Amino acid sequence: MTHVFDEATAVEQVSPGVFRAHTHPAYNNMVGPFGGITAATVVTALQHHPQAQGDPLSMTLNYAAPIAEGAWEIAVTVLRTNRTNQHFTFLISQNDGPVASGTAVFGTRRDTWSDTEYDFPSVGAPEDYAEQEFPEFIAWPRNYEKRFVEGGLNDITGPQPSSTTTLWLRDRPGRDLDYPALASIADAFFPRVFLRRGTYLPAGTISLTTYFHATAAELAEQGDDYLLGTASAARFGHGHFDQYGQVWGRAGTLLATTHQLVYYKDPQG
Amino acid sequence: MTHVFDEATAVEQVSPGVFRAHTHPAYNNMVGPFGGITAATVVTALQHHPQAQGDPLSMTLNYAAPIAEGAWEIAVTVLRTNRTNQHFTFLISQNDGPVASGTAVFGTRRDTWSDTEYDFPSVGAPEDYAEQEFPEFIAWPRNYEKRFVEGGLNDITGPQPSSTTTLWLRDRPGRDLDYPALASIADAFFPRVFLRRGTYLPAGTISLTTYFHATAAELAEQGDDYLLGTASAARFGHGHFDQYGQVWGRAGTLLATTHQLVYYKDPQG
Repeated sequence: MTHVFDEATAVEQVSPGVFRAHTHPAYNNMVGPFGGITAATVVTALQHHPQAQGDPLSMTLNYAAPIAEGAWEIAVTVLRTNRTNQHFTFLISQNDGPVASGTAVFGTRRDTWSDTEYDFPSVGAPEDYAEQEFPEFIAWPRNYEKRFVEGGLNDITGPQPSSTTTLWLRDRPGRDLDYPALASIADAFFPRVFLRRGTYLPAGTISLTTYFHATAAELAEQGDDYLLGTASAARFGHGHFDQYGQVWGRAGTLLATTHQLVYYKDPQG
Repeated sequence: MTHVFDEATAVEQVSPGVFRAHTHPAYNNMVGPFGGITAATVVTALQHHPQAQGDPLSMTLNYAAPIAEGAWEIAVTVLRTNRTNQHFTFLISQNDGPVASGTAVFGTRRDTWSDTEYDFPSVGAPEDYAEQEFPEFIAWPRNYEKRFVEGGLNDITGPQPSSTTTLWLRDRPGRDLDYPALASIADAFFPRVFLRRGTYLPAGTISLTTYFHATAAELAEQGDDYLLGTASAARFGHGHFDQYGQVWGRAGTLLATTHQLVYYKDPQG
């Protein structure tokens, strides 16, 4: 049986470097698909490119317009292949109009001196925190088991002093972690402005950048276990905020860091 | 008299959407130009695009190969213009070969609820810290007055426990801050691995993303005063590390946040 994530991120090469994908109702957001599933589909397409070498190191995806229900295309260009890394650009279109664009770098990982300098957040075990669900009208979070340590959905009852969310999460049903899944999870934090304003607001990612620190061996070690995500915003203003986030493996490995710029509309001004 | 930064970032439109720029010896790095001056030149070109609307909100620039001394071209595509933002893609080439690529979003800033959640770093006045210079063989830092609060060049004498650098800096000679200058300063932190390994190593930015939080009025308020920059790395490993940074105005305004992925070569393995 195919996992719903694999159904949603499936791509088919329809001409050299051009891949067709389809929106999947299970990953719908309020308007259009969840940005994380689009990012995951892009990673899948890049990995399927016949010239792809190495594993994802970084990806930036700019969301220019909502993707409508149905088929969409991603056109991948291999810009340059160096000895240890490979640069891609890509354009996402639907009905011949551009809806998103971005760049990515794949690379080979050499053994070097290494250290994770940031600390693993001080949290209890996943089982110490109750599961929480998003409101019924948002589909995509149902594909993740979410156990909030702080800044959960139950706190969206009034303005909060902190935009930080920290949670344990994993695919539901379980699925072994890979780069597309990590790309999706890096965008699985709800908009930080919900916490600060204490209410749901129109908000959407404009630009998402994720750095994949995980090696293939670290992904394999993680398997389908819980991941720890944490995210916060530095500045809100003039209709935009940034979000900086980290995704850690259960064993304390920093698998990804991510940064995004988000649009919001605040009816109270 | 033209400021050296304006000389180095000058662009000329040579055909619709295609701009020519030139490397400038004052902004040379160890190999090729300083990445910040390339980013600044891209912002300048985008601002000169006849269809550009609004101010820079975000930019991602992927460095695929060193730019050689001389002329280079940036081809800008306006991907989509929405009501409140505008999406660009761009390709940098030299002698008909691609050397860099990226995306950017410009936007209009509406009045909304606003808050800067991160704290301004706890530091003394710029004058409390002595100026420091980079080694003679690196040109570009001479264009910045640098007063390190922590993690300065004088600490590159042996492995340090922290990758954090915090410094006051400003253009030398003085120049009023604008978006190109902010783009350059967001990349003005030397590679974090120098501190952790306690020595200079081959290292270079692969992908740079900067979010411009500053409004035009905030840039004007800043003028040519000192900026406070702070940056650190979360994880080093397998030849790559990330850097997260912030650029603050003298008055405590968070002007930009930035994230980059950096390649490094560690001879000790």
